[in-house]
Amino acid sequence: MANEVLKGISVAEFFEKNRHLLGFDNPIRALLTTVKEFVDNSLDSAEKGKILPEIFVQIQKVSDTRYKVIVEDNGIGIPKEHVANAFGKLLYGSKFRVFGGIQSRGQQGIGASAAILYAQLTTGKPARIISKTEKDKLATVLELKIDVKTNSPEIITQTELDWKKEHGVRVEVELEAKYVEKRASVIEYLKETAIVNPHATIIYIDPLGQKFEFQRVTDILPKEPVEIKPHPHGIELGLLLRMLKETSARTLKSFLTSEFDRVGEGTAEEILKTAGLDPKLGPKFLSLEQADKLIKAMHGAKIMSPTTTCLVPIGAELLKKSLEEEYNAEFVHAVTRAPAVYRGNPFLIEAAILLSPDLPADQPVKLFRFANRVPLLYQQGACALTEAVMSVDWKNYGLQQSGKNLPIGPAIILLHMASVWAPFTSESKEAIAHYPEIIKEAKLALQELGRALQAHLSKKHKVEAAKQRANIFKSYSEELAASLAALANLPKEDLIKKVVSISEEVVATIKETEEEKVEEKVPTKRARKIGAFRVEEEENE
Amino acid sequence: MANEVLKGISVAEFFEKNRHLLGFDNPIRALLTTVKEFVDNSLDSAEKGKILPEIFVQIQKVSDTRYKVIVEDNGIGIPKEHVANAFGKLLYGSKFRVFGGIQSRGQQGIGASAAILYAQLTTGKPARIISKTEKDKLATVLELKIDVKTNSPEIITQTELDWKKEHGVRVEVELEAKYVEKRASVIEYLKETAIVNPHATIIYIDPLGQKFEFQRVTDILPKEPVEIKPHPHGIELGLLLRMLKETSARTLKSFLTSEFDRVGEGTAEEILKTAGLDPKLGPKFLSLEQADKLIKAMHGAKIMSPTTTCLVPIGAELLKKSLEEEYNAEFVHAVTRAPAVYRGNPFLIEAAILLSPDLPADQPVKLFRFANRVPLLYQQGACALTEAVMSVDWKNYGLQQSGKNLPIGPAIILLHMASVWAPFTSESKEAIAHYPEIIKEAKLALQELGRALQAHLSKKHKVEAAKQRANIFKSYSEELAASLAALANLPKEDLIKKVVSISEEVVATIKETEEEKVEEKVPTKRARKIGAFRVEEEENE
Repeated sequence: MANEVLKGISVAEFFEKNRHLLGFDNPIRALLTTVKEFVDNSLDSAEKGKILPEIFVQIQKVSDTRYKVIVEDNGIGIPKEHVANAFGKLLYGSKFRVFGGIQSRGQQGIGASAAILYAQLTTGKPARIISKTEKDKLATVLELKIDVKTNSPEIITQTELDWKKEHGVRVEVELEAKYVEKRASVIEYLKETAIVNPHATIIYIDPLGQKFEFQRVTDILPKEPVEIKPHPHGIELGLLLRMLKETSARTLKSFLTSEFDRVGEGTAEEILKTAGLDPKLGPKFLSLEQADKLIKAMHGAKIMSPTTTCLVPIGAELLKKSLEEEYNAEFVHAVTRAPAVYRGNPFLIEAAILLSPDLPADQPVKLFRFANRVPLLYQQGACALTEAVMSVDWKNYGLQQSGKNLPIGPAIILLHMASVWAPFTSESKEAIAHYPEIIKEAKLALQELGRALQAHLSKKHKVEAAKQRANIFKSYSEELAASLAALANLPKEDLIKKVVSISEEVVATIKETEEEKVEEKVPTKRARKIGAFRVEEEENE
Repeated sequence: MANEVLKGISVAEFFEKNRHLLGFDNPIRALLTTVKEFVDNSLDSAEKGKILPEIFVQIQKVSDTRYKVIVEDNGIGIPKEHVANAFGKLLYGSKFRVFGGIQSRGQQGIGASAAILYAQLTTGKPARIISKTEKDKLATVLELKIDVKTNSPEIITQTELDWKKEHGVRVEVELEAKYVEKRASVIEYLKETAIVNPHATIIYIDPLGQKFEFQRVTDILPKEPVEIKPHPHGIELGLLLRMLKETSARTLKSFLTSEFDRVGEGTAEEILKTAGLDPKLGPKFLSLEQADKLIKAMHGAKIMSPTTTCLVPIGAELLKKSLEEEYNAEFVHAVTRAPAVYRGNPFLIEAAILLSPDLPADQPVKLFRFANRVPLLYQQGACALTEAVMSVDWKNYGLQQSGKNLPIGPAIILLHMASVWAPFTSESKEAIAHYPEIIKEAKLALQELGRALQAHLSKKHKVEAAKQRANIFKSYSEELAASLAALANLPKEDLIKKVVSISEEVVATIKETEEEKVEEKVPTKRARKIGAFRVEEEENE
């Protein structure tokens, strides 16, 4: 028989060849993905330390096909002994959970290392990383590459630096890339990031040296997400077996109450009774058959929905404020739904709609999708959130719509899903999988927006109609006054004066309402271009 | 500062949680994916040994939500020392190539282990594997699970067996699943697999005990694919650096001629001259700057397109034969295009169209997509092959079509992409990424089909028109004969007889053509249901 060479493949080799799975399919997207992975980590790191995030992003042109990306944050930094692995090893990080979960932007420990892998693949250059965790310590400075064969960091140089920052991380990579100024661009990504992270300040210097500042609109940090234990309804047999093996609980009953969400003593006893298992049995001694009985009882038991303190919404008020900072708004409405559950994972949908005279009235609305405060810029067509928008009958709410497509109108629709585990359709994390529970919640949120929109539009139409009526009344007022004078035998001139003055008053009142609206329209765009200037040196080091 | 726990995540943990990325998103699809991964490996294994594949597939119902999947082949088997890793470790196999490539169904070493991972996650049960590599040896029998934390096999039992098979592999897993008989079902997958693997026999026993046999339609094995070296136009700097480090070549010139496709001495010298590098330089001593110059010269050099002996088409004749075995065909046409290249990877498109009176005339055509002889049953909308079909103007070729959608008609359209590296949009390998070169080639193939279709349809219309004319002639023949008789002063009765006989002859000729066609229509379906019977025991052990 012919012989084959069978061998292990490192996860770095795998993703190097399959880099399109991680969002590195072309030079435009590679640049955006690189910025995105680093910025997501930066925001997570600042929030972890209860710090208002200040993120600095710079893209420098090296040649026609090469760019340098710099991202610097004021987060908690990465301890010296972990820096190399955090950036030089795929599948290494703090956010992955086998059981339960925590709401964070990153969730797999792949992104940042993948960006470094792509950079070295295309330019052969190492990444440069500065990390500092404490005010009075020196910062660690590493130049590193990834040994693809072993998926491990290959440290080129390691030094220390008396960094001006109290704490934080700075990453620099050079990669083959292409810079464009259109939708799905770096600036669009940063703008959308600013909208859903109203507590963050982001400073961006583009390849032309232009500086953009997205200033925070609130000084209040989002509530810290609480990590949750797995919910008995969402657990699978294989995971239960591992939990039984790994637990430090001595009895089945304490195993259930200590390792699962929403299981008190009463619930635990009930589950074990249904399963026909002795509460005092040691978890490690369960046979496969007994575990099977246990999981069936767990799935069937009446248990409260998962704890939802793990979810941190942006909040309707802040979402509105944030959108108004970016857009000239005629009307804004936002909602935050109560938490719901898919496959045992709690999640929560937020939605907002904004009407602006600056947006085209004859085009599909702009759709902004977010998962755990991260903008989803690609694969709109493959996303459950898009499906939810298209499944709403927007004609009921005053927008045009042909068939099951995006509605037409001068509007932005925003959807945000917060969850301990966002079910992305690929590792590049651009689209949410089509769970019916998620689509349903998003649809309910959108319908709520729809009703508010309809109320606004109908009020707007009422004002316009009243104005029209008043104008008609005014145009007939002289004749009317003359007729009245004749009928009542009153002095004609006086009556004309009075009627005309009344009609003018009516018209004026309506106009006043209109003018108030005009005042609301003053643009308050946060993304001020501070002025184009060449940045001669790197700014923040 | 708050402290985080940073740690490594095993690739098994990652894919256990992200199993939807591998095609295990729901119980229906999980069953299909399991069968698919094992059958793909079985076909690869038989071909590797130049053996006509005989694949046995059985699905047994264990309970309402559990099924047992058995796949057995007559391939080369897996050597004893590799069996555990081949099935108990993700990213382990023989088909992954960092440089260059080879055309095969599997390409990542994930699929089979992922199926076993999913089985143990949902039922807690180990997989059972039998493997035999040589006639006179005993078979290795393993029961194994995957240690998810370390991504390594956990052997439950290991024994030996005097197996009746000369060589091959048998895998049995039990998983949570749902069995359905609709599109994207196991039987559909096996049927489509049989169509593009005309040299394979597949026997399938469904959960009701019904046996289906897809007999091979040819005894000729496909040509063995040749492994190719990387092409200088497709290589990236990071890979070149690794090749320079790993090569055993002593000089740059011999490095280029020995490690790359289509580089002879002349080409090598030219490249090195352009790069300004000494041909005698040792590859290991190149600086990053020198490597950068070298790759630019490689990318810019005039070099022949990649070697295409690595590609193994099915062939237009076999594709036609195979389709005719499955469908009642009024018309079939197939084409195999010459190889083309995307990103340095050679690929080749084959296409076929079949018209059948059994298919609905008012529905979109059925589209069969394949990559390296594997059916793609999901994500039709996301696939470059689908885009190619929709971008052809089928109205030009006689099919209805509204806008850029699939054409309407009683037809099957088949597209097959053969490549050393199929650019799938996800690990579940269901859709081809949108490379313009791939779409262009597919479109050219489809247009060729379109022209043949049009010729067929216009001939068909001609026959119909001729028949109509002949019938009109016949219906007037008595009157015509009477007039002629009067004009020529001939015996009326004789003339009538002659004219009628001529007209009948004409009609008959046309009918004959029609009848020939009808004969072609005799169904020759290969997928004969041999008869429903309960399978009392496992058959092939």
